Amino acid sequence: MIRRITAALAGADTTLLGPGDDAAVVAAADGRVVASTDMLVENRHFRRDWSTANDIGHKAAARSLADIAAMGAVPTALLVGFAAPGTLALDWVDGLVAGLREECGEVGAAVVGGDVTAADTITLAVTALGDLQGRDPVTLGGARVGDVVAVAGRLGWSAGGLAVLGRGFRSPVQVVTAHRRPEPPYAEGPRAAQLGATAMTDVSDGLIADLGHIAEASGVRLELRGEAIEVPAKLAEVGAALNVDPLVWVLTGGDDYALAATFPRGTDLPEQWRVIGAVIDGEGVRVDGRRWPVGGHEHYR
Amino acid sequence: MIRRITAALAGADTTLLGPGDDAAVVAAADGRVVASTDMLVENRHFRRDWSTANDIGHKAAARSLADIAAMGAVPTALLVGFAAPGTLALDWVDGLVAGLREECGEVGAAVVGGDVTAADTITLAVTALGDLQGRDPVTLGGARVGDVVAVAGRLGWSAGGLAVLGRGFRSPVQVVTAHRRPEPPYAEGPRAAQLGATAMTDVSDGLIADLGHIAEASGVRLELRGEAIEVPAKLAEVGAALNVDPLVWVLTGGDDYALAATFPRGTDLPEQWRVIGAVIDGEGVRVDGRRWPVGGHEHYR
Repeated sequence: MIRRITAALAGADTTLLGPGDDAAVVAAADGRVVASTDMLVENRHFRRDWSTANDIGHKAAARSLADIAAMGAVPTALLVGFAAPGTLALDWVDGLVAGLREECGEVGAAVVGGDVTAADTITLAVTALGDLQGRDPVTLGGARVGDVVAVAGRLGWSAGGLAVLGRGFRSPVQVVTAHRRPEPPYAEGPRAAQLGATAMTDVSDGLIADLGHIAEASGVRLELRGEAIEVPAKLAEVGAALNVDPLVWVLTGGDDYALAATFPRGTDLPEQWRVIGAVIDGEGVRVDGRRWPVGGHEHYR
Repeated sequence: MIRRITAALAGADTTLLGPGDDAAVVAAADGRVVASTDMLVENRHFRRDWSTANDIGHKAAARSLADIAAMGAVPTALLVGFAAPGTLALDWVDGLVAGLREECGEVGAAVVGGDVTAADTITLAVTALGDLQGRDPVTLGGARVGDVVAVAGRLGWSAGGLAVLGRGFRSPVQVVTAHRRPEPPYAEGPRAAQLGATAMTDVSDGLIADLGHIAEASGVRLELRGEAIEVPAKLAEVGAALNVDPLVWVLTGGDDYALAATFPRGTDLPEQWRVIGAVIDGEGVRVDGRRWPVGGHEHYR
């Protein structure tokens, strides 16, 4: 299986030694390397009846590549640990590998190594590497009082798609596809760093939760303006059909891998970035001055 | 749990940004980074009734760190994906993390990041990073006819310990400990590279199998001299007690993470390296001219 997988992979410009040896060698011209690992477990992070193998490969790669972008870095490489039952169809594995390779290709990265082992449950461990290109990493802890809070990329779409699938539907295709195959705004990570972003993260657990990590690490409060937080018409439509407030998806839905960052006030932000609030004294995250959801626990602060 | 784990970790000199952010940042002064991932699944790669959490942490780290050493590189960092049932005792996790940290400490590396998720089976995904310090990586494919074959580190000890544990015994302690906590000769990896090693690997699957990877990648045959392959007295003793030929452990036992390499003939090797054979024309691995075990299948060549 390792030979089969290796044969299906292609290197990137930064791949100095690809799969097949004891370890890979990846260029790190900057003299530093950014690295992040994510685990995905079947029926917790993905379902084979809701997503194709190709979708799951794309999403598994996206999840880790977005972490690299959220540091302001450009992804260079992926290493993939793969545990699965011996009965798993080889063409499912082919689809997974193609998805991983294709998603890497969108950012100029490559799958450079990994490991395959037997296990009762399909489990993926995806490690992404990246290049800061001479910039400082943009961490969670740099937000300053007076900064603006801005987001790039979609919010709530994956959660809307998950809700649709959970009710047994397969449409609208836009939200279902968004759940199956997120489109993180990778290029906005390095761009935000160039623009002077003071803190940044990717939205994997939900906007309020992930902004909460910035608030905590920076020792500030992030005050969001409800009117600035857009609920796209398609999500409103799906929410109406399912009798769900789509703002819940936008504020708490994960897995879209939008980028959320703070910038010094007055930064000239490109159109991809939408200002949704400001950094003030205090702690936690508030929407129009209130915890969200109203009456929520500290978990949501 | 992530906070608890992060609090138990310490950085290394190369740790520019440790756990707690979207990604870690690790020094790669060489302008390249070496990276390798291994998966470990409970009851396939370890048993909780045979090894402590601390042992399992040491071994999981060793398995990946040895891959870095086998490229001739010095390990700098580990990222650890950890999936486990929610019922797992926290002090077991503490022991695991301590083992990972301690093993990293032996080579000047550090656990810089990771991920924690729920799963039915304890699964570890360990990614190690390393620094080539300006040297070329030592790959599987560089062995040349006329080279000598040499090994550093223990062979067969872990397999002997596994055999003891499998029979329900807990002693001799030397072999059981060797199984629970391997001692890869990490420093010999970079040293072998400096000495001009032409190919190198770590012995994770067994000497014959892992040398087979060098033979295949290099397009040569590795001819071993049986008389040069030492069976330590302790393994002979255990073999006699269990009625097993200990040479089987030495030639096919994995998980000791010895280093096996080829060097140009005439290389002045330090005492840590034992010459066991030579590189000749042909393919596969032979012991005194024969496949091992005698009559073995192509799998063993």
